[in-house]
Amino acid sequence: MKLTFLGTGDAAGVPLFGCDCDTCMQARRGMGMRRACSAVIRFGSSSILIDAGRGDLAELFDQYNFDRILLTHYHADHVLGLFHIRWGSRDSAIAVHGPADEQGCADLLKHAGILDFSSCMQPFESRSFEDISITPLPLNHSKPTLGYFFDYDGKRLAYLTDTLELPAATESFLLENRPDLLVIDSCFPPDCEHKRNHNDLDDALNIHRRITPGETWLTHIGHGLDSFWQQQGIELPDHVFVAADGDEINL
Amino acid sequence: MKLTFLGTGDAAGVPLFGCDCDTCMQARRGMGMRRACSAVIRFGSSSILIDAGRGDLAELFDQYNFDRILLTHYHADHVLGLFHIRWGSRDSAIAVHGPADEQGCADLLKHAGILDFSSCMQPFESRSFEDISITPLPLNHSKPTLGYFFDYDGKRLAYLTDTLELPAATESFLLENRPDLLVIDSCFPPDCEHKRNHNDLDDALNIHRRITPGETWLTHIGHGLDSFWQQQGIELPDHVFVAADGDEINL
Repeated sequence: MKLTFLGTGDAAGVPLFGCDCDTCMQARRGMGMRRACSAVIRFGSSSILIDAGRGDLAELFDQYNFDRILLTHYHADHVLGLFHIRWGSRDSAIAVHGPADEQGCADLLKHAGILDFSSCMQPFESRSFEDISITPLPLNHSKPTLGYFFDYDGKRLAYLTDTLELPAATESFLLENRPDLLVIDSCFPPDCEHKRNHNDLDDALNIHRRITPGETWLTHIGHGLDSFWQQQGIELPDHVFVAADGDEINL
Repeated sequence: MKLTFLGTGDAAGVPLFGCDCDTCMQARRGMGMRRACSAVIRFGSSSILIDAGRGDLAELFDQYNFDRILLTHYHADHVLGLFHIRWGSRDSAIAVHGPADEQGCADLLKHAGILDFSSCMQPFESRSFEDISITPLPLNHSKPTLGYFFDYDGKRLAYLTDTLELPAATESFLLENRPDLLVIDSCFPPDCEHKRNHNDLDDALNIHRRITPGETWLTHIGHGLDSFWQQQGIELPDHVFVAADGDEINL
């Protein structure tokens, strides 16, 4: 399978609106821009979108022809693109699988249009679509939130945003099912005092050390962490990488 | 003052996601695209954004340097751009004036970031910002919704989306204060049986005939009306025009 990062930013994104620091000015020139955190998994002739916060979701559909959408949760920066495409024209509904969350986001579940939210994902209940197995893993966030563990053709990928640390049961699952590739929330700079609902870099690296996946890629990265790296340089353990929008990983 | 249409589409926009009709295929090639319904009013050295549904609001701020934002209402296609910029960096908050609506949209009012929603607009209570007078006019929609009547330097502009017909009090106000320019919701093709919460073309033209403004410009236009025109040709009364994204009108 192949993972492509469609967005690697936090809810504010990079550049940060109104900020004229070097990191943000560079991002405005197209270097280091981070869009709404999302990714596409491709395997065989199928493709699955993870999270739908990008505003240009219609164009992404043209490019990737997603078979279905997985949502980690219903915060705005993970679902904004759905508000537009729901009113589109399709022969059949688009399946959107998220955690059970009665509130959803605004009127999205109430007025679903061509989207079908009826088939929710339940923690640790594996499901197979085409030839891929997907196991939802609960995360620590301010709304019901799931990470997803993909198993395809003997390769394992865990995609875990948005979270502050990991629930014990999720960590146990990952220790028993070590992923080849771990994608993990790393929103804030290290030793961050004001972190809420997301890992800082220390948390993300500690998770990497405990899980010992083949590789770990950091995502859901905020302007503060990019600024920190711009000033300090990036020093990361072996097998840990910083994801950028557009990066592709073959598994 | 100068009005620029930043978007003239309905919630689905043109092109309609998934539709391959001539109108939509042409819009994908850049001709006739309709983005989220919104506009900017410029007067003196000031500028006011009306509605914030475009996803590239940060870039629009760079271009127009809005002094404040007016919201007609809190449906997603009128506020989506705010979910991103609220987490930006600014010396002072951005004033966002909408109707009183406790629900707002998702968690926008609860987590306002750099946006200040505290100063709501009340029907028929005129307010002045810099040298412009703004009178909120109630509209007929499925959420609390206001149109806005602008009076600047002896010129009058009424901007009225989203609405199905007009409340009697709003119509009386406009008959007593005839606008030089009327911008009116014209979402559906004429004689539309399934219309909800928005005018069809007949409704919009009837409003034009009753109010007799200097000019009427149609906006909040859906794919169905554009398709109708593509097939039938556009025949409109004198002084009535179809707005397109990017159109500018000097008053």
